[in-house]
Amino acid sequence: MTNQKRFNVAVVGATGAVGEQIIKLLEERQFPFQQLKLLSSARSAGKKISVCGVEYTVEEACPESFEGIDIALFSAGGDVSKALVPAAIERGAVCIDNTSAFRMDPTAPLVVPEVNADKIKEHQGVIANPNCSTIQMVAALKPLYDRYGIDRIIVSTYQAVSGAGTRAIDEMLHQTKEVLEGNTVKPDVLPVSSLPVKHQIAFNAIPQIDKFQENGFTYEEMKMINETKKIMDDESIKVTTTCVRIPVVYGHSESVYVELKNDYDLAEVRELLAAAPGITVVDRPEEQAYPLATDAAGKHDVFVGRLRRDLDHPRGLNMWIVSDNLLKGAAWNAVQIAETFASERPE
Amino acid sequence: MTNQKRFNVAVVGATGAVGEQIIKLLEERQFPFQQLKLLSSARSAGKKISVCGVEYTVEEACPESFEGIDIALFSAGGDVSKALVPAAIERGAVCIDNTSAFRMDPTAPLVVPEVNADKIKEHQGVIANPNCSTIQMVAALKPLYDRYGIDRIIVSTYQAVSGAGTRAIDEMLHQTKEVLEGNTVKPDVLPVSSLPVKHQIAFNAIPQIDKFQENGFTYEEMKMINETKKIMDDESIKVTTTCVRIPVVYGHSESVYVELKNDYDLAEVRELLAAAPGITVVDRPEEQAYPLATDAAGKHDVFVGRLRRDLDHPRGLNMWIVSDNLLKGAAWNAVQIAETFASERPE
Repeated sequence: MTNQKRFNVAVVGATGAVGEQIIKLLEERQFPFQQLKLLSSARSAGKKISVCGVEYTVEEACPESFEGIDIALFSAGGDVSKALVPAAIERGAVCIDNTSAFRMDPTAPLVVPEVNADKIKEHQGVIANPNCSTIQMVAALKPLYDRYGIDRIIVSTYQAVSGAGTRAIDEMLHQTKEVLEGNTVKPDVLPVSSLPVKHQIAFNAIPQIDKFQENGFTYEEMKMINETKKIMDDESIKVTTTCVRIPVVYGHSESVYVELKNDYDLAEVRELLAAAPGITVVDRPEEQAYPLATDAAGKHDVFVGRLRRDLDHPRGLNMWIVSDNLLKGAAWNAVQIAETFASERPE
Repeated sequence: MTNQKRFNVAVVGATGAVGEQIIKLLEERQFPFQQLKLLSSARSAGKKISVCGVEYTVEEACPESFEGIDIALFSAGGDVSKALVPAAIERGAVCIDNTSAFRMDPTAPLVVPEVNADKIKEHQGVIANPNCSTIQMVAALKPLYDRYGIDRIIVSTYQAVSGAGTRAIDEMLHQTKEVLEGNTVKPDVLPVSSLPVKHQIAFNAIPQIDKFQENGFTYEEMKMINETKKIMDDESIKVTTTCVRIPVVYGHSESVYVELKNDYDLAEVRELLAAAPGITVVDRPEEQAYPLATDAAGKHDVFVGRLRRDLDHPRGLNMWIVSDNLLKGAAWNAVQIAETFASERPE
């Protein structure tokens, strides 16, 4: 036992794909919690989850759940966050919210610790965890931004179905099996479970993640555009995005084209990235070594490779960025925020 | 029977994935052939293939195979083309070559009929069929090039395994089944069968198609860069590419960002594309309608959707371009060239 301050922690959405990972990480990282409260919807309440050898019963989340809570980690969907984050704040909790509910709220810091950990202390009760596809990209771009400046980003994503939840994973695996057996499939979840039209994800690429906006971009694409500017604290960066779901279970891959503000040296880019926290460079074409979703799955880091200069533009740089969307893209980034917050909290 | 001139046609690589499609198309299109010769390697010689109700025996290709042949369609790999195209030309055949052997040869027209059919008549014995991923992109970009000019293209591909041949299809389907059953897999074909390192394609995205060059780009990526400039007959177009293999059987998808030279009107872009030969616009976000590989498979057209303006750059346009890589990307483009050639040939 140390004299370290200990915290009462609540996990909202404890039985979901991200919630499960958050609990596992709190355990692995020996997060200094005193009391742990696992919360969910009424449907999942009553489930038992073992953490550090202690069995916890999942409770239905309600405003009173947050009495005495210091840190509440939310990942139960935007509506739950909108409904319960204010109640948690009222009761003195600091909320780390993994949904999009507060990300663009000007009073809420939007944090990727490798990029802007200093914003955490400016919180007014809620610290927002960015969108998965944004997190891995800005983590990899920050060292280049600091050194050369960034004029524009053009990104196309290759996103895993786990980003759409466990039902989407189940659908893809089941559907794939059906296609392999020559059976007809009837898509039911993807691309967006709440929308009327469904598309086959097995052996396909679906250029839609989340709903469409009037401007022709999806919400997922707009998240990447808006959140990147907010996290980098630079509205002048031009960003355009195409977000695509592919038949991968865990790990988002991204083809990122970045046009730097100043001339760059490719060897220096490699060194900057290799030295950056949370980044692993995998870039040895002569050995066919580059980041792969199947390799990144289960790991905390952001993996970067395929670094090469645009042959037709001197400040253009191509990159391939891969990370586990449930870990760095969600649970791990949230727990990193919680750790940073905890370590900075006055005794 | 018409008085139309009829041709003696040879198909080299008749038993391969593309050769099979070429034969099917010659049949479907009632191509005016008099004699048809199906050629292959020694390994596949002797196989029987039925065309228009007549059974043909596949023969081993050798220089003498081309005696009396008017049109020879090659898709048996670059080495076979290099070895046999000269022999075929010597014997008076015009070769339509689907490999990369002659594509960058300055004396060989590189043709996508919708873009530069006029080049066919400049041939000196060989007309080259471009790379699959290039064909569908330039077909969709040509109407925009003619109207607005193109300053630069930044493209990321989502390519089907059939582009790597039937062995790659078999590997992916088998490997996917093994992964679903929880078995360990031992990749054997992809990303490049002749290279030492193999990667799992099931539930993964592999950012390597073909070998790497010194500059960090793969040959596939360089093909898209060089061939685009040659087909558009404009070395000033800036092109940068990232080519990625994903677990799809048929149909390449492409996220294409194009910066036009002049201001554009998005409604006019839609009209230009809808009116262009060989292009089908599928772009109704309100109905979740956009091109999908599974829909494009088996069709001749290039499908374009997700048309939207870069919010941060007035001349930037995002597009999603999908086509069957074995049809428009290979066999259909080759047969289109043969049809154009045949129709222009003096009696």
